[in-house]
Amino acid sequence: MAVRGTLLLPQFLLPVRPAGTVLEHHALRMVGDRIDALLPAEDALVRFPEDLQVALPRHVLMPGMINLHTHSPMTLLRGVADDLPLAQWLQDHIWPAEQRLVTAQFVADGTRLAMLEMLLSGTTCFNEQYFFPEVIAREARAFGMRASVGVPIINVATPWADGLQACLARAEALMETVADDPLVDACLSPHAPYTVDDHALQEVAALAVAGQVQISMHVLETAAERVQHEQTHGMGPLARLQRFGLLGPDFLAVHMVHPDAEDMQRLADTGTQLAHCPKSNLKLASGICPLPQLLAAGLNVGVGTDGAASNNRLDLLEEVRTAALLAKGSSGDATAVDAWQALDMVTINGARALGKETQLGSLEVGKIADLAALELQAAATQPLHQLHSQLIYSASSSQFSDVWVAGERLLKDRQLTRFHADQLLAEAALWPARFRGDASVGPSL
Amino acid sequence: MAVRGTLLLPQFLLPVRPAGTVLEHHALRMVGDRIDALLPAEDALVRFPEDLQVALPRHVLMPGMINLHTHSPMTLLRGVADDLPLAQWLQDHIWPAEQRLVTAQFVADGTRLAMLEMLLSGTTCFNEQYFFPEVIAREARAFGMRASVGVPIINVATPWADGLQACLARAEALMETVADDPLVDACLSPHAPYTVDDHALQEVAALAVAGQVQISMHVLETAAERVQHEQTHGMGPLARLQRFGLLGPDFLAVHMVHPDAEDMQRLADTGTQLAHCPKSNLKLASGICPLPQLLAAGLNVGVGTDGAASNNRLDLLEEVRTAALLAKGSSGDATAVDAWQALDMVTINGARALGKETQLGSLEVGKIADLAALELQAAATQPLHQLHSQLIYSASSSQFSDVWVAGERLLKDRQLTRFHADQLLAEAALWPARFRGDASVGPSL
Repeated sequence: MAVRGTLLLPQFLLPVRPAGTVLEHHALRMVGDRIDALLPAEDALVRFPEDLQVALPRHVLMPGMINLHTHSPMTLLRGVADDLPLAQWLQDHIWPAEQRLVTAQFVADGTRLAMLEMLLSGTTCFNEQYFFPEVIAREARAFGMRASVGVPIINVATPWADGLQACLARAEALMETVADDPLVDACLSPHAPYTVDDHALQEVAALAVAGQVQISMHVLETAAERVQHEQTHGMGPLARLQRFGLLGPDFLAVHMVHPDAEDMQRLADTGTQLAHCPKSNLKLASGICPLPQLLAAGLNVGVGTDGAASNNRLDLLEEVRTAALLAKGSSGDATAVDAWQALDMVTINGARALGKETQLGSLEVGKIADLAALELQAAATQPLHQLHSQLIYSASSSQFSDVWVAGERLLKDRQLTRFHADQLLAEAALWPARFRGDASVGPSL
Repeated sequence: MAVRGTLLLPQFLLPVRPAGTVLEHHALRMVGDRIDALLPAEDALVRFPEDLQVALPRHVLMPGMINLHTHSPMTLLRGVADDLPLAQWLQDHIWPAEQRLVTAQFVADGTRLAMLEMLLSGTTCFNEQYFFPEVIAREARAFGMRASVGVPIINVATPWADGLQACLARAEALMETVADDPLVDACLSPHAPYTVDDHALQEVAALAVAGQVQISMHVLETAAERVQHEQTHGMGPLARLQRFGLLGPDFLAVHMVHPDAEDMQRLADTGTQLAHCPKSNLKLASGICPLPQLLAAGLNVGVGTDGAASNNRLDLLEEVRTAALLAKGSSGDATAVDAWQALDMVTINGARALGKETQLGSLEVGKIADLAALELQAAATQPLHQLHSQLIYSASSSQFSDVWVAGERLLKDRQLTRFHADQLLAEAALWPARFRGDASVGPSL
């Protein structure tokens, strides 16, 4: 007897690959966690009469989006310190708050809130960097979301680890824990060139090779970073990272707002991956990343929202819209980063940056069924002249109605299937009082 | 017997004036189309026991937002030509399409779609500029939305008018029609310095004075405009407008992306009003308006979405968020345009730009009850550390649940009260086929 699958029957399919394709009245067949077939809806109904059918009559079905950089637990610090430059924001507000508040419970509550926001807005996979990564990994597994969980590597003591050796030990432990996990990967996240010393970089490079894991790091987020780095190390951040053999396809450089010509060459020569976070860079006045030049150099660039304390939304659709508009406005070229390129950035480019191009990022037979359906029957997306343009320039992330991760429908008609959104929001709502030091709500455990 | 009013009972009130104020557990009392009182909810329930009560337990109530610049009917051309520079977009795509399609029906259908999108996203008043303004005025009145309807003044013949005299005659007619209209005003909208000759500017100046109406005009949207204008007229656009006495508090200069030092002085000296349209300027690669400098010069700047063919959303909350982020990123100053200033830009500054500061733009006793309620119980706006910050940097416009114009609740729990959204969307959905020249859907009448 034939295997029973599920037929998703959307009005439109945006498979991302082949590039520039829109399929109308086609079905996507899922079997288990995989995409089994893409074919005309009529044929699908004849060939697979036993399949479960999911009607999406006014929807476009696309790959779930991939958020290449976030700090999920920081959703609990959303809006505590806005309209400030990065250094002051970090040193006077965020770091002190984290010293006071960050615990396993903070990380668990904040991660659940972040995953709720991301799932509701069409994101199925996120590349994470925060303390208590083992808690984040556990919460992602429980939530059913795909995550690349970065273990922070930093020389200073934190509420989570008392220094480099502790970070490295916990990295090895997490790598072992998630070794066979279908949803969660571990990666190494040295914080930034200005917070990680040479010895730590050596250890990171060795551990990444030994464990065959990716590395994700903030690099050249501000212009000051290069100046300070040259004073301290006698060279720019990328030159130093290259000396330790860190640059390459397994290294994700986050932000990259201020590369010079030499840096661009280094990035291109090594095939280093890039995560662009335009809204965070604007809000902290870090600058405007030269996205068109990076793409012209043949680099693979995906998009990250950064944490909610500096964005303040984990909305990848608004993020990539901002990336496309900002690229045009800052370069003076309205053709820069068109809607198709923008769609690639939040799907296939993100998959490639995480080393998962063969598994994720497009709707192709054999790939994993991480999917998002957006309802088109809304004022902002009517009338429908060009689907890809409506999605990137017009749609609101609130139009995502259904999301599947590894073939499981985690969002059904805008409702979570595993959790109750109100409960997650209620957990989060306790934190402002804890932030203010109000003992009545109880300590963070 | 006492007059029966309506008590709105939100969790929070953002009155905008006094500046920086957040009121918790307060009531806003409406009587007719006016704000009658703002007082603690407890007191309100005692003082006005007979009033109709509207519970908004998880909402913030704020002034309805004011969209200072749009071309509503262009919603029907949303996405027909993206990723193109302004001149090519206008001359090769938009103008030819308009020549073919623009009729009274096009304008009526497109205006209804635009008002649906604006109302759903918390906008209660829009400053319009498009052909068939008499149709737009009629549709706004029927929809119940507040509008300042600009009559296009342009020397070339259009599908609506065969030249300057026809434009002026229709302007006078519309001014007479709406003379006593509580919702709709007429204004004059000479298109741009490069499409309106000296004689037309003279006529506009005279008619504006005679009819005591405002003038709204695209000015310095691109760098090329200044160069061409200096070649044609021997002076920059603002110098020429000033020669005809057009600059001043009744003149709204839209875009103003490329003012030089002399222009800044002219704008400040005359108290000319400004409409900033950041997303349209980015998308068409027109440039980045020096918003922080304009504000520092003491100018009054509001926000416009521009038309949906160049934005492509009429979402004023996302627009002002972009304005604030872009101001920080482009100026290198993270303190530029903070959340309070951003809130002012879409409320009181917009009202001032339309000469309605005493009537609109803040929640003050005696002002008109144009209101919007945004539901805060959503992933993107929890937890709630700082209300104004959550609204500007985190909230989605889809969180607006209820909107009142002149005291009438036009949006109730996200549903229109006067129209059916699906019917408006169905009307709009016919236009792509007409755009493609498909006769089967019938001509545009």
